[in-house]
Amino acid sequence: MKAYVLFSGGKDSSLSAVLLKKLGYDVELVTVNFGVLDSYKYAQETAGILNLPHRVEFLDREIIERAVDIILRDGYPAGGIQYLHKSVIEILADRYKVIADGVRRDDRVPKLSHSEIQSLEMRKNMEYITPLMGFGHKTIKYLVDRYFIISQGESDTIMKSDYESEIRALIKARGKDPRDYFPKHIQSRVIGVKEGEG
Amino acid sequence: MKAYVLFSGGKDSSLSAVLLKKLGYDVELVTVNFGVLDSYKYAQETAGILNLPHRVEFLDREIIERAVDIILRDGYPAGGIQYLHKSVIEILADRYKVIADGVRRDDRVPKLSHSEIQSLEMRKNMEYITPLMGFGHKTIKYLVDRYFIISQGESDTIMKSDYESEIRALIKARGKDPRDYFPKHIQSRVIGVKEGEG
Repeated sequence: MKAYVLFSGGKDSSLSAVLLKKLGYDVELVTVNFGVLDSYKYAQETAGILNLPHRVEFLDREIIERAVDIILRDGYPAGGIQYLHKSVIEILADRYKVIADGVRRDDRVPKLSHSEIQSLEMRKNMEYITPLMGFGHKTIKYLVDRYFIISQGESDTIMKSDYESEIRALIKARGKDPRDYFPKHIQSRVIGVKEGEG
Repeated sequence: MKAYVLFSGGKDSSLSAVLLKKLGYDVELVTVNFGVLDSYKYAQETAGILNLPHRVEFLDREIIERAVDIILRDGYPAGGIQYLHKSVIEILADRYKVIADGVRRDDRVPKLSHSEIQSLEMRKNMEYITPLMGFGHKTIKYLVDRYFIISQGESDTIMKSDYESEIRALIKARGKDPRDYFPKHIQSRVIGVKEGEG
């Protein structure tokens, strides 16, 4: 069975991909891009390190512009990122039968509610899997350390292919400072694997 | 890392155990028993089929008697089973550093809330993992079919080591008919593995 894993090059989406591969899925990594930056190249690189096939889905820039509207209106990113992630999954659910992402038990956003997930799966006749949903922070740290070599840093210094990279660029393009909207936080990117995964 | 998986011999706890094993955990299966029936022997048998070590934790019968009180009072099993599962995890969390169970995304009970889980992990300095929490009904069916040969039947005919077996016996012992409290439902038990798991 083929599973498409939404992939930023970070530890959570990498761990989700490894977990599904170990369960026997034929995993392909998918990075979405809105044409703002070519930030998908970082995920491409990490996909190569994980030895997993990778594709980029170019989606309509209007979606991320709308997410930026929400963030600028709110003054913080949660609502806009939630909107963006939900929109992305709705679109990809028409293209793929099994979609997974790296959302974790202790994440607040982006996170679909139980009823949103059930509605999505029924409307689109697909499966949406969140392999890390039953794992807490400590367990994920243990598993990430077991499998990956990661590079960590402030979110404006780590080159990743997540939504945030393009959102930051768009906020800048609108003459605002992304640091006024995103709280400082540590980001990570997988730069190596510890075992012969893949 | 050692992980103790609460184990009934059913497909969900078996799948949780296989998943954690594939992630590299040193898995040991744990079946709880309250001294009402020797129903743990079914789980012992399935543990042998999965080729995983197994132990029985004999817990205080008062806990399950209290669960039966709740069920008889309510007229249905949800509250009593929720109480029982929570009590079991609280007790085992003092004995094991990593505990997992087979609770799934689409289960209603037994299910600890996010804040109950965070409180448990912090108070007891342990990890509570629910590996199937990110998997829906359809995905679990696919994985179970991939890994296991199962025997299915009405819940009063399948010999399992779950809470329900001992609860039914206690309801009978109190002169009531368990069928008045448990809705008819299909139970399953793992009776073989399809790949060379274990």
